[in-house]
Amino acid sequence: METQHADQPPTDPSRSPAPTHWVLSLSCPDRPGIVHAVAGLLAEHGGNITESQQFGDQVSGLFFMRVQVESAASREELTAALEALAPRFEMAWRLDVVGRPVRTLVLVSRAAHCLHDLLFRQREEGLPVEIVGVVGNHTDLAGLAEFYGVPFHHMPVTQATKADAEARLLTLVRELDVELVVLARYMQILSDDLCRALEGKVINIHHSFLPSFKGARPYAQAHDRGVKLIGATAHYVTADLDEGPIIEQDVERVDHTKSVADMVRLGQDVERRALARAVRWHAEHRILLNGHRTIVFR
Amino acid sequence: METQHADQPPTDPSRSPAPTHWVLSLSCPDRPGIVHAVAGLLAEHGGNITESQQFGDQVSGLFFMRVQVESAASREELTAALEALAPRFEMAWRLDVVGRPVRTLVLVSRAAHCLHDLLFRQREEGLPVEIVGVVGNHTDLAGLAEFYGVPFHHMPVTQATKADAEARLLTLVRELDVELVVLARYMQILSDDLCRALEGKVINIHHSFLPSFKGARPYAQAHDRGVKLIGATAHYVTADLDEGPIIEQDVERVDHTKSVADMVRLGQDVERRALARAVRWHAEHRILLNGHRTIVFR
Amino acid sequence: METQHADQPPTDPSRSPAPTHWVLSLSCPDRPGIVHAVAGLLAEHGGNITESQQFGDQVSGLFFMRVQVESAASREELTAALEALAPRFEMAWRLDVVGRPVRTLVLVSRAAHCLHDLLFRQREEGLPVEIVGVVGNHTDLAGLAEFYGVPFHHMPVTQATKADAEARLLTLVRELDVELVVLARYMQILSDDLCRALEGKVINIHHSFLPSFKGARPYAQAHDRGVKLIGATAHYVTADLDEGPIIEQDVERVDHTKSVADMVRLGQDVERRALARAVRWHAEHRILLNGHRTIVFR
Amino acid sequence: METQHADQPPTDPSRSPAPTHWVLSLSCPDRPGIVHAVAGLLAEHGGNITESQQFGDQVSGLFFMRVQVESAASREELTAALEALAPRFEMAWRLDVVGRPVRTLVLVSRAAHCLHDLLFRQREEGLPVEIVGVVGNHTDLAGLAEFYGVPFHHMPVTQATKADAEARLLTLVRELDVELVVLARYMQILSDDLCRALEGKVINIHHSFLPSFKGARPYAQAHDRGVKLIGATAHYVTADLDEGPIIEQDVERVDHTKSVADMVRLGQDVERRALARAVRWHAEHRILLNGHRTIVFR
Repeated sequence: METQHADQPPTDPSRSPAPTHWVLSLSCPDRPGIVHAVAGLLAEHGGNITESQQFGDQVSGLFFMRVQVESAASREELTAALEALAPRFEMAWRLDVVGRPVRTLVLVSRAAHCLHDLLFRQREEGLPVEIVGVVGNHTDLAGLAEFYGVPFHHMPVTQATKADAEARLLTLVRELDVELVVLARYMQILSDDLCRALEGKVINIHHSFLPSFKGARPYAQAHDRGVKLIGATAHYVTADLDEGPIIEQDVERVDHTKSVADMVRLGQDVERRALARAVRWHAEHRILLNGHRTIVFR
Repeated sequence: METQHADQPPTDPSRSPAPTHWVLSLSCPDRPGIVHAVAGLLAEHGGNITESQQFGDQVSGLFFMRVQVESAASREELTAALEALAPRFEMAWRLDVVGRPVRTLVLVSRAAHCLHDLLFRQREEGLPVEIVGVVGNHTDLAGLAEFYGVPFHHMPVTQATKADAEARLLTLVRELDVELVVLARYMQILSDDLCRALEGKVINIHHSFLPSFKGARPYAQAHDRGVKLIGATAHYVTADLDEGPIIEQDVERVDHTKSVADMVRLGQDVERRALARAVRWHAEHRILLNGHRTIVFR
Repeated sequence: METQHADQPPTDPSRSPAPTHWVLSLSCPDRPGIVHAVAGLLAEHGGNITESQQFGDQVSGLFFMRVQVESAASREELTAALEALAPRFEMAWRLDVVGRPVRTLVLVSRAAHCLHDLLFRQREEGLPVEIVGVVGNHTDLAGLAEFYGVPFHHMPVTQATKADAEARLLTLVRELDVELVVLARYMQILSDDLCRALEGKVINIHHSFLPSFKGARPYAQAHDRGVKLIGATAHYVTADLDEGPIIEQDVERVDHTKSVADMVRLGQDVERRALARAVRWHAEHRILLNGHRTIVFR
Repeated sequence: METQHADQPPTDPSRSPAPTHWVLSLSCPDRPGIVHAVAGLLAEHGGNITESQQFGDQVSGLFFMRVQVESAASREELTAALEALAPRFEMAWRLDVVGRPVRTLVLVSRAAHCLHDLLFRQREEGLPVEIVGVVGNHTDLAGLAEFYGVPFHHMPVTQATKADAEARLLTLVRELDVELVVLARYMQILSDDLCRALEGKVINIHHSFLPSFKGARPYAQAHDRGVKLIGATAHYVTADLDEGPIIEQDVERVDHTKSVADMVRLGQDVERRALARAVRWHAEHRILLNGHRTIVFR
């Protein structure tokens, strides 16, 4: 994780009588004095901490922190102070405004439940994302996107056209200033190059309780194995298929009366629940990477 | 599954004015008329059905039934009637008295939580088993068994003595008329021969959400993978390690703050919960085998 | 519960080479011979039982049964046979075709999540209802109904117009041949007369874990009490507010960081999950009334 | 909550080359600079923060903090520094050594499951309490206490002897230097005076999902109401019966087949789970009072 600044919020909350509610997340090698230094920086800028969590991982030797703070300081002032502090602790940090909607692109195939859920939560439940587009390799979900006023992009993918399609996708990500890509039951595997280009910015929902039942048709595998709980896993996408850092998992009880089709149906509930939580936590900057594992400051 | 009768209950509930509460479980190829024939047999013996469940599996083409029935008929009468009926439907069946404690042998190593839980539930919570002995390859848990008045058998196992130890174990199973063997975190792998000799009579608790993290040190594997739920799986033991029919699974939420040691501790709760349910359902004759999967009439 | 026949299915599945998949549910005073008699009736009509559950309640002395059976017999034949059998056991029964969509009217106010969920599950997840209309005392959800092609009826309710509005509602229920009315966060209390007129046909979702937090603003009550789990309860509506027979309940963990607004948002997930299950079980004829409690043959 | 120091740990961890792992919890009116001041104090004493959580409650206007810190400073040094800082922020604080066993007295009647669970977790699962005595108004559990080497005190309670018994109890609390009293299904109501004398030091497990089913026989109430989940609530005891601050709640699914006796049995699992978590969090100083609600830094 390199030092990076958040993209500009829609309106720059420069110094004003009303304080801005900031969220700062950071990680660095663990050593004494980090909290004091960060809290001092914030205090110097009139900051009032409203919520904060820290964690020192004894395995990796890294320290993680997320803090929400009210301050009337401008982004420039805070950024300058953080840039001055960071080298001393080899700190990677990210500053954003609490609640700023994260610009999100959703990739889908034919299954509607995850897209449907995200669009609904964005409109009705305060999910802090702005869905700036839906990309489908089929057109089935164009109507749903349209109902919510979101542009739908049809990008069919065949072996022959895959490279072109991914190039179009990357262009779209850049043109739309996309910060987060969600694979909402998108039935295509991204190329290694695309995974690397978008590292840390792509969340997938896998329809099994990973690492059980990797690969294709997990519910059929689960039914055949006779499991008593089925699950879903939201994770960051890496070039290593179904092996990316896990963000959230959830399960649902099944029994012998449930067919594969029943499991698919019941699993849809688990999938959208796990995915929605993962997207919310990402958009609220609650997730930090700790190697191939995640810190989630819920 | 072959036709088999239950072992005699401690006191033979032969014909008397007070009816006996029977439990009958059966399976056979699915076809019309099974329920009618069984219900007719029971009605002819003055039976009043208090609880019943049926399930026809469209995949295997098998039919499964469990019925609790109050009847003043003797075991001999019911057995004769069932033996007469069974061939017509190629029926495997099992008749027992509701609540009769199943004679159970518990195998342990050093971890106390599962044995502790089973002994407690037997004494205080009406778990319908009679724990007739505890076998340990270490002596750590001898005192616990003694507190509950259960004989403890020390059977150390080394590569050299394994065959002898298993022979002793089989002898013990026969002498004590053991109907169920529970591997309560027993850290030895049973030989294929022993697995076959006791097929369908041995329940193991594996400390992961199978099929994830088979084999050794599943919590260390789970921690390394960064899962957000840990689990446990109670299953029948077969010669195919960690692949036997699953009876019950349960999970517990974990997060980034949990070390491997924390997971071990949290997992102990899940393990004993899943194991206790599996043992109860087995002892209540609620589990029927459907190939390598289980029917559980909860 | 009186003897009643199901309303006619859209297409009459009269005798034909292909068998119909029937669902029969019944209750009567418990006594020997019920299962045998019912299974006999079904066997006489060539019935093959695919799924069945029975339960005898020792408290009420009532017996309950639900059976799915494949049979080529016509509805008239089965009905005649059941009408002949019922008096002998004082049996209330109901016969329907498995999977026939139940004609459903949904009542809403301003909150979209439950309506949204039901419409989606009807279209995409095989929820066996046909939503024949949406009634709103506000117009906020007209667009959502329209997107799914369901007629929206605006019925504003004031103290002065309440009687008229309920009369209109009853007329609509009759004209549309409505079998089930769902109060999907409908913020009006039905009059006692309407409750009685639609008894056993109205499902409400209450946004608390009943009997905790009856009445208004349950999440505010829950927040003030400092509970650690919030819940929702789907129940049949009776004249006794929030006291009707409970069908399903579910909960979600909360902690001290959650405001009332957070609880409202998290609760929406629990509400729609509990309501969707209740509607599914009702539409699949899995629920039988046992006094003021429910039997749910899941 | 007044400013208070923790009781002395068994061995005084005064300055030494090996740092002590301290836990500091505090609360005060919310205002800028608290975290900076506390982190500064800890940094001045060479402290390395290993885990920390903060929360500002917008309703009460209070700020809460829990921090684990490694420092070679002595208790006297840290105490002096905290006493100097506290007035500036009107801060109530508590300092202890991480993992120091809290001296605990358990009160019981006849039901064994909670006592059994606490004794087991203390011995085998690192529950950081030292159970210094068990008090029973019946003698049923004397043998269990003895097995774990814990003194058992028989204190029968009748209307006539209640005042005397409570006086004996208070004496015992003082003589044994008891820091925590656990009512482990103790079927007596403490007097208002005793509640006040031990305020914030007594944890009770109520066998329902409060505020549902207060008072006597909650499972019978739950069965009669036909609920689909039963629960248990661990809470601090106040003079207001069943109204004290809730620490933890948990639930278990039940259905129509479950009798009151079944619910009692299933409920025992939920009770001991919820109670064990509450005791652990208390002993780890993770719970802070926020009026009649709790902050739990899990």
